[in-house]
Amino acid sequence: MKPMHSIQELQQLVIDKLAEEASAIAITEPVNLYEPITYTLNMGGKRLRPAMLLMACDLFSGDIKNMLNAAVAVEVFHNFTLLHDDIMDHADIRRNQPAVHKKYNENVAILSGDAMSIMAYQYLLKINHPAIQEVTQLFSKTAMEVCEGQQYDMDFEHRQDVSIDEYLKMIRLKTAVLIAGSLKMGALLGGTDSDNADRLYRFGINMGLAFQLQDDLLDVFADQEKFGKKIGGDIVANKKTFLLLKALEIASPKQKQALQYWIEKDDFDPKEKIDAVRTIYTDLNLKEISEQLAETYYQKALNEIQAIEVASERKEPLILLAKTILKREH
Amino acid sequence: MKPMHSIQELQQLVIDKLAEEASAIAITEPVNLYEPITYTLNMGGKRLRPAMLLMACDLFSGDIKNMLNAAVAVEVFHNFTLLHDDIMDHADIRRNQPAVHKKYNENVAILSGDAMSIMAYQYLLKINHPAIQEVTQLFSKTAMEVCEGQQYDMDFEHRQDVSIDEYLKMIRLKTAVLIAGSLKMGALLGGTDSDNADRLYRFGINMGLAFQLQDDLLDVFADQEKFGKKIGGDIVANKKTFLLLKALEIASPKQKQALQYWIEKDDFDPKEKIDAVRTIYTDLNLKEISEQLAETYYQKALNEIQAIEVASERKEPLILLAKTILKREH
Repeated sequence: MKPMHSIQELQQLVIDKLAEEASAIAITEPVNLYEPITYTLNMGGKRLRPAMLLMACDLFSGDIKNMLNAAVAVEVFHNFTLLHDDIMDHADIRRNQPAVHKKYNENVAILSGDAMSIMAYQYLLKINHPAIQEVTQLFSKTAMEVCEGQQYDMDFEHRQDVSIDEYLKMIRLKTAVLIAGSLKMGALLGGTDSDNADRLYRFGINMGLAFQLQDDLLDVFADQEKFGKKIGGDIVANKKTFLLLKALEIASPKQKQALQYWIEKDDFDPKEKIDAVRTIYTDLNLKEISEQLAETYYQKALNEIQAIEVASERKEPLILLAKTILKREH
Repeated sequence: MKPMHSIQELQQLVIDKLAEEASAIAITEPVNLYEPITYTLNMGGKRLRPAMLLMACDLFSGDIKNMLNAAVAVEVFHNFTLLHDDIMDHADIRRNQPAVHKKYNENVAILSGDAMSIMAYQYLLKINHPAIQEVTQLFSKTAMEVCEGQQYDMDFEHRQDVSIDEYLKMIRLKTAVLIAGSLKMGALLGGTDSDNADRLYRFGINMGLAFQLQDDLLDVFADQEKFGKKIGGDIVANKKTFLLLKALEIASPKQKQALQYWIEKDDFDPKEKIDAVRTIYTDLNLKEISEQLAETYYQKALNEIQAIEVASERKEPLILLAKTILKREH
């Protein structure tokens, strides 16, 4: 049996490969198209999706060195979605640096993003593998669903009747499917059957949902210094997260009135709004309720992993990853 | 030998298939993502690129009915580029209707366009064919080059030193490669060898260049009523077409001074500017010079077709198409 690779080894493989590709892209003409792509790829990040693709491949003793282009494909695609989302969301900062549409301009951001989307396919299609068409179809379906998730997210901004089920569907599309799709792509490229690949897909969906619930919690309850970005952004923007939707569902009439007051108030001190809403969330036990739901998804994810037919020691890196991602400090 | 199909038959096949797909897309959720795609696909157009893909397939007696999804792929991709180009070029009207970013808004146009780009791959990847990976790689390379062409086109707006060679490179990327790529995709799906497929590719490149030169000419010299869109738009916008670049190259000092005067003038009567610049073009024989260059490309295109190893009667639709496209009224 092939030796396994740690998460860190796989992340490092991805980081090195991306750095190499980014350097080559930087000197491709026309520079105004390609240079922003290098800028985007060099912004950094944990490279979790491509590392997870390689971990899934490694789980089935696949040839990970030959699958690096698939890993690059999912990371380039993910970065493309961030780039275009930042235009749509008027988000000017990405990883403490100016977003592409701010550093360059909006046209550059649109066209470079378009090119990255195509480039993702170019990387994927470099791979010589009997399942490549199925993998590319899965990648396309996933990519389409990510667009659907972004659309629902934007739609929800203008709706006052979003249900928790709709919210969960939205984060499944916007966040979870790319994690799940990356894992399933890796599994198929690792040569396993569709049963095992589908188990990894469901592992990814459940992990993605748990991850997003945790991320929403961090926005409200994280330690500002450890979190690295501003706390309370979702509250200030009235973002319809699980916390807000659940709060509106279970709040007393008085609490509901207070929430509505803050939601409708145009002119407010951000700190005051954040503190007020956080207090309501705390009174409603929402931290525990949300963590409980995340825990349910986490357990479902673990069950899927356990059902996969490979030696249990090969599953350790994926289980460790799930633990690391979901139990992070907050 | 299989019976051949006329251009009109193939166009009709594409039109019917696109109408069917557009209806299905219209009722897919989220509606705000998919409805603008249907709007775009229903705007019409001659569907030449997908028809050419099928013609190339038909040339080698390929199974065109099974290649309709590839034809749809190139048309969806082409419409995606128009959609995003209209945002970038601030073009508010497309085929006498509001552009997507005007009818809906810019975010809708960005995200629907992104989805169309992915959707193009989804159609293409439905095809079951031994060359599908090669065809999808070719499609990706072509798509990337179209992005490069758009970037050069935007770059040229801010440059005063664009050479004719650079202009020809830009139109090759922005216009000719998608025609050539569609033909080569059809040829490969039709089962021919790479020599024949490459001949069709070069046929497409030369036809595309000739077509764009004719299109630039029409903007200046067309009969307004027959042309269907406003005459002189390129002149008003100082667009660096072959006509302007060649004029600046061969003009007398006095003519060059007059051209520069109109290029630099901010406040002008459009009709007066168009008439003045057109007169200089006429005095410089630019209609004939441009037609001569288009004719050179047209002959090169015909030579490529003639070298293809199939019965000459099967080539007739493609030759007729080249004649029809390039010799249209102006």
